[in-house]
Amino acid sequence: MDHPDLVESSSRGLRHAEEALERYFVLAKRRAEQWGDGYLKLWNVIEQNTSGGKRFRPRMVMTAYVSLGGDDLPAAGQLAAAYEMLHTALIVHDDVIDRDFVRRGIPNVSGSYRDQATTAGFATPAAEHRGMSVAVIAGDLALSGAYGLVDRTGADDVTRLRLRELLDGAVSASAAGELADVDFSLRPEAPTVDEVVDMERLKTAVYSFEAPLQSGAVLAGADDATVTALGEFGRLIGIAYQIVDDVLGVFGDERSTGKSTIGDLREGKRTVLVSYASTREEWMRVRELFGSPALEEDGAEKIRAVLEECGARAYTEALARDYANRAWEALTSPSIPVATRDELRPIVANVLERAR
Amino acid sequence: MDHPDLVESSSRGLRHAEEALERYFVLAKRRAEQWGDGYLKLWNVIEQNTSGGKRFRPRMVMTAYVSLGGDDLPAAGQLAAAYEMLHTALIVHDDVIDRDFVRRGIPNVSGSYRDQATTAGFATPAAEHRGMSVAVIAGDLALSGAYGLVDRTGADDVTRLRLRELLDGAVSASAAGELADVDFSLRPEAPTVDEVVDMERLKTAVYSFEAPLQSGAVLAGADDATVTALGEFGRLIGIAYQIVDDVLGVFGDERSTGKSTIGDLREGKRTVLVSYASTREEWMRVRELFGSPALEEDGAEKIRAVLEECGARAYTEALARDYANRAWEALTSPSIPVATRDELRPIVANVLERAR
Repeated sequence: MDHPDLVESSSRGLRHAEEALERYFVLAKRRAEQWGDGYLKLWNVIEQNTSGGKRFRPRMVMTAYVSLGGDDLPAAGQLAAAYEMLHTALIVHDDVIDRDFVRRGIPNVSGSYRDQATTAGFATPAAEHRGMSVAVIAGDLALSGAYGLVDRTGADDVTRLRLRELLDGAVSASAAGELADVDFSLRPEAPTVDEVVDMERLKTAVYSFEAPLQSGAVLAGADDATVTALGEFGRLIGIAYQIVDDVLGVFGDERSTGKSTIGDLREGKRTVLVSYASTREEWMRVRELFGSPALEEDGAEKIRAVLEECGARAYTEALARDYANRAWEALTSPSIPVATRDELRPIVANVLERAR
Repeated sequence: MDHPDLVESSSRGLRHAEEALERYFVLAKRRAEQWGDGYLKLWNVIEQNTSGGKRFRPRMVMTAYVSLGGDDLPAAGQLAAAYEMLHTALIVHDDVIDRDFVRRGIPNVSGSYRDQATTAGFATPAAEHRGMSVAVIAGDLALSGAYGLVDRTGADDVTRLRLRELLDGAVSASAAGELADVDFSLRPEAPTVDEVVDMERLKTAVYSFEAPLQSGAVLAGADDATVTALGEFGRLIGIAYQIVDDVLGVFGDERSTGKSTIGDLREGKRTVLVSYASTREEWMRVRELFGSPALEEDGAEKIRAVLEECGARAYTEALARDYANRAWEALTSPSIPVATRDELRPIVANVLERAR
C-alpha cells in the first residue's frame, strides 16, 4: 500500500496528526532514556519507521472528521496518530512473519538490527534472529502506542469507548487476516479469489480504511447511519485499493510505485491475480517459477505473460473496478453528507484510474 | 517464574479476576467466530495459554486492592485480568524470541501451531516458522486484550489514566528488559551482575510485582505515598524473586518447580549465577559447555559443580536474601497499612525460604 499518488485526498488537519506523533515520540523517548541507550535507540528506530510514510490512515481519520464538521483538530490529530502507530505495529510484525528485512528499499526494524549484528561479525542466522527479535519488541511498543493515543482525545466516555471498540476491531481483524495469510502458505492448493479478498479486507482494509473513517466520524459526533455508511464505503474502497495494489506489485511502474515488481512473484504472494490464474491451464507453465526464491527477471516476465494470457490480469482489474464502482455507489448514501462525499470521491477516482 | 508454592498469598477476590477473564474470552471468541474457524481456534489456543497459570499477577492486584480497603471486586477483577493478559502477551512473544516451543512441558502457541504443521507433513523450518508467525499474532491479540481490560474498571477518568500509565510503563519496561536480554546474547563477554539485575527487574519484576501492586492500590484509592511504597516493595521483592528463580532453574527440584534444571544452562541464559561465575577462574573449565545445545546431564552436573565451587551459588543466594530483606524493610514503611503488610509478608518469607 501507500503509493504516494493514491493519497492525494484532503490533507486538512494532517499537521495535527504529525504534531500528535511528535509529542508521542518526545514523551516515549523521555521515558526510554532512563532505561539505557539501547532502549532509546530502539525508540529512534521506531520513529524512523513511522515517518516517511504518506500518512494514509491519518488522512482517512482527518478527512472524515473535518468534512463531518469536527472542529477540535488537536483531538482528531491524536486519533489519527493512533492509526499511524497501529500501521507501524502491523507492518513491523508483518515483516517478521514474512521474514522481510527491507521496506521501500530501506532496512526496516528487523533489517536495521540485523545489519548492525552482521557488521559486528555475527553469522547471518544469528543476525537475522536478532533483527526479528527486536522487531517483535518494537511492534509491541507501537501497538501499545496506538492504544495510548486513541484514549487521549479528551472525548467523553461514550465516544471514547466507541473509538476503543473500533481500534480493538481493527486489531482483531488484522490478526484474523494475517492468520489467514499465514495459513494460505501451508495449503497445497491456491486460495480462491473470495478467500483472498476476505483475507485482504481483514488484513488491510479494515485498519486502513473502515476503522479510520469510522473513528473520525465518531469523534466528529456523526450519527450511526453515517458511521455505518462510511464503514461500507471503507470496506469496498479498501478491497479495491488492495486488489489494485497487488496488480501494481506485478505489473506496476517501479519508478512510480517505488516497489519492485518481482518481489511478490518471488515470495509467492497470494493475490487475486494468482488465485484466478491457478485455475487456468496456462498456469502450469509457470507454477514452478512462482514463489521460487531464485526467480529472476526473465522468469518473472514469463509469469507476467501467463497472467495476461490466461485473463488473470483483466479479471483482476475488472474486479478492482467493480469494487471501486460499488464504493462510488456507497458514497451516494443519503447518510453521507455532500462535503464528505466530495472529499472521498477523488480516492475512488484514483483507484479507478490505476485499475486502467 | 510462577512456581506454585511461591504464590500462596491471599487469593481473596481472585474469583473476580477469573470471571473477568472468562467474560473477556467469551466476547473475544464471539467476535472471532465471524472471521472463520481458524481465527476462532487461535482464540481457543490463547485462552488455553492463559489458563493453568497461578494467576500470580492477578493475586498482586487483588491483594493490594482488598487489603487497602477496595470493595468493588468486579472492577478489581477486570484490572487483575488485564495483567494476566499482559503476562500472556509477554511470554508468548518471549517464546518467539527465545525460539521456545514448549512451556512447562506443554506446547505453547508456537509449539501448537508448529506441531500441527509438522503433522500435516511440513518440514521443520517451515513448521517452526508457521508456529512463530502465529505466536506473533497471538501475542498482539493478548496485548490488545490487556489494554481492553484495564480500561473497563469503570473508574473515574483520573484513576483510569493512572492505571493506563502504569500499564504503559509496564509494557515499556518489559520491552526495555527484553531488548537488554537480546543484546546480552550478542556480546562476547558476560553481562555484569548489575546489568543482569537491571534486565530482570525491567523484563519481569515491573510487570509482575510493581505495576500490579501499584495498580491495585490506585484503584483502591490509596494515597501517593502508599502507591510509591508499594512500588519500592514490588521492585525489591520482584528482583529477589527472579534471582531465586534463576537459582532454582539450575539447582531446583524439578518435581516441585515443574521446570527442567538443564534448560537454562543449555540455552546459555544470562543470570546472576553465570555473571558472577564468569569472573572466576574455575569458570574456564565449563565455559564451552555453557550454552551448548548438545549439553547433557553430565555436562550440566559439571557446570553446577563449578557454580558451587567458585562461590556463585552462595553469592547469588545471598544477593536474593539481601533483596528479600530489603523488601521486608520496605514493608515497614508507615505508608503501608498493617493489613497490606500482613498480606505481603508471606511472599517475602517464601522467597527467603527458597533462597535457603
